[in-house]
Amino acid sequence: MKTADFSKIIRDVPDFPKKGILFKDITPLLQDAKAFHTCVEAFAAEFGKEHIDYIIGIESRGFIFSPVLAYKLGAGFVPVRKKGKLPWKTEQVAYELEYGEATLEIHQDAFQKGAKVAIIDDLLATGGTAEATAHLAEKLGAEVVKMAFLVELKFLKGRERLANYDIFSLIQY
Amino acid sequence: MKTADFSKIIRDVPDFPKKGILFKDITPLLQDAKAFHTCVEAFAAEFGKEHIDYIIGIESRGFIFSPVLAYKLGAGFVPVRKKGKLPWKTEQVAYELEYGEATLEIHQDAFQKGAKVAIIDDLLATGGTAEATAHLAEKLGAEVVKMAFLVELKFLKGRERLANYDIFSLIQY
Repeated sequence: MKTADFSKIIRDVPDFPKKGILFKDITPLLQDAKAFHTCVEAFAAEFGKEHIDYIIGIESRGFIFSPVLAYKLGAGFVPVRKKGKLPWKTEQVAYELEYGEATLEIHQDAFQKGAKVAIIDDLLATGGTAEATAHLAEKLGAEVVKMAFLVELKFLKGRERLANYDIFSLIQY
Repeated sequence: MKTADFSKIIRDVPDFPKKGILFKDITPLLQDAKAFHTCVEAFAAEFGKEHIDYIIGIESRGFIFSPVLAYKLGAGFVPVRKKGKLPWKTEQVAYELEYGEATLEIHQDAFQKGAKVAIIDDLLATGGTAEATAHLAEKLGAEVVKMAFLVELKFLKGRERLANYDIFSLIQY
C-alpha cells in the first residue's frame, strides 16, 4: 500500500460536526492494520535520521499517532491537553477557535531547555492548534524542529500560518 | 530498566482531580524515552504470539498506549470515544460513574463479527469504563481476548468486576 492510496480509505462525512463541514473520518484507516502500519512507517521515513528528543501529541485525536512515533523514533512522549486535565504545574496558552477561544496546557517539567521536539497531529486545518502548541513548547525553551500531520486541508492555508516551521503531511486535500 | 522500577517514575499528585484523590500521574514515565520504550515492550511481551485483530483505545489517555500496541502487534486500532465525537453510525453504551453517568461510543463498522480484540487503557480503577468498552465490542460480535492496563489500583477491585476477562497490568498499587 502506498500513501497515495490512503485518501481512498478516509471517509467523507458531510455536515459533521456541524452543517456545511465535510469531515475527514480517519477511523477506517486506523482500523485497517496494514494501512495503519504503512502510515506509521511513512511518518517515520519523513523523520529519517533526524534526532528528536520528544514527540508532542495534542489531545485527543493527536494522541493516536504521536506516541507511536515516539516509540518508533526512541523519543519521549509529551501530551498537550485541554485546560484542567494535566495534574501538575502547567504552562498555558489561549488561542482563537472559529467561535470563541480554547486553552491548552503542558506540564512545566515536560522537557529541558534546548530539547528538540516535534508536534504530530492527525489534521492540519487552519493551523491554530499546532501554532498554540508550538508556542507552549517554546515557552519551555524547546526547539520545534518539525510538525507532521496525517491529513492537510490545503484550502485552509495552515501551512502559511505555520511558515516558520518545517512541516509535512501524508495526505493532502 | 525493569517494569518494577516504573512505579518510581510515576508521580503522586494529591487532591487531583478532586480533594481526597491521590492521582497517579504517568506523564514522567511517558516523557522518559527509555521508560516509555520499556513499557511498550513489556505490554507486547504479555501478548506474546497471541493473534489480535484490533486494539481498542478509550478516549483520551487510553489513546496513548493502544495505538503503539496496535502498530507493534500488527493489529488495527479502534477508538472508543465520548458521546458525539465519532462522526459515523455508532453503538452506544451508558455506564455509571462515581457521580452520574457517561456514554461511550464505537463505530458500527469498527470490526467484523468474531474479531479478536484487546482493550488497552492507562488505568484500571473500578473497571467500569473497561467493562462498558467490552460490552460495546461484544455488541458488535467481537471477542474480547485481553484487557491490559499500565496501572492497576488494586484496592478498587476492578479485577473482580472484570472477572470474566483475561487481564494484566504492568504496575500495581
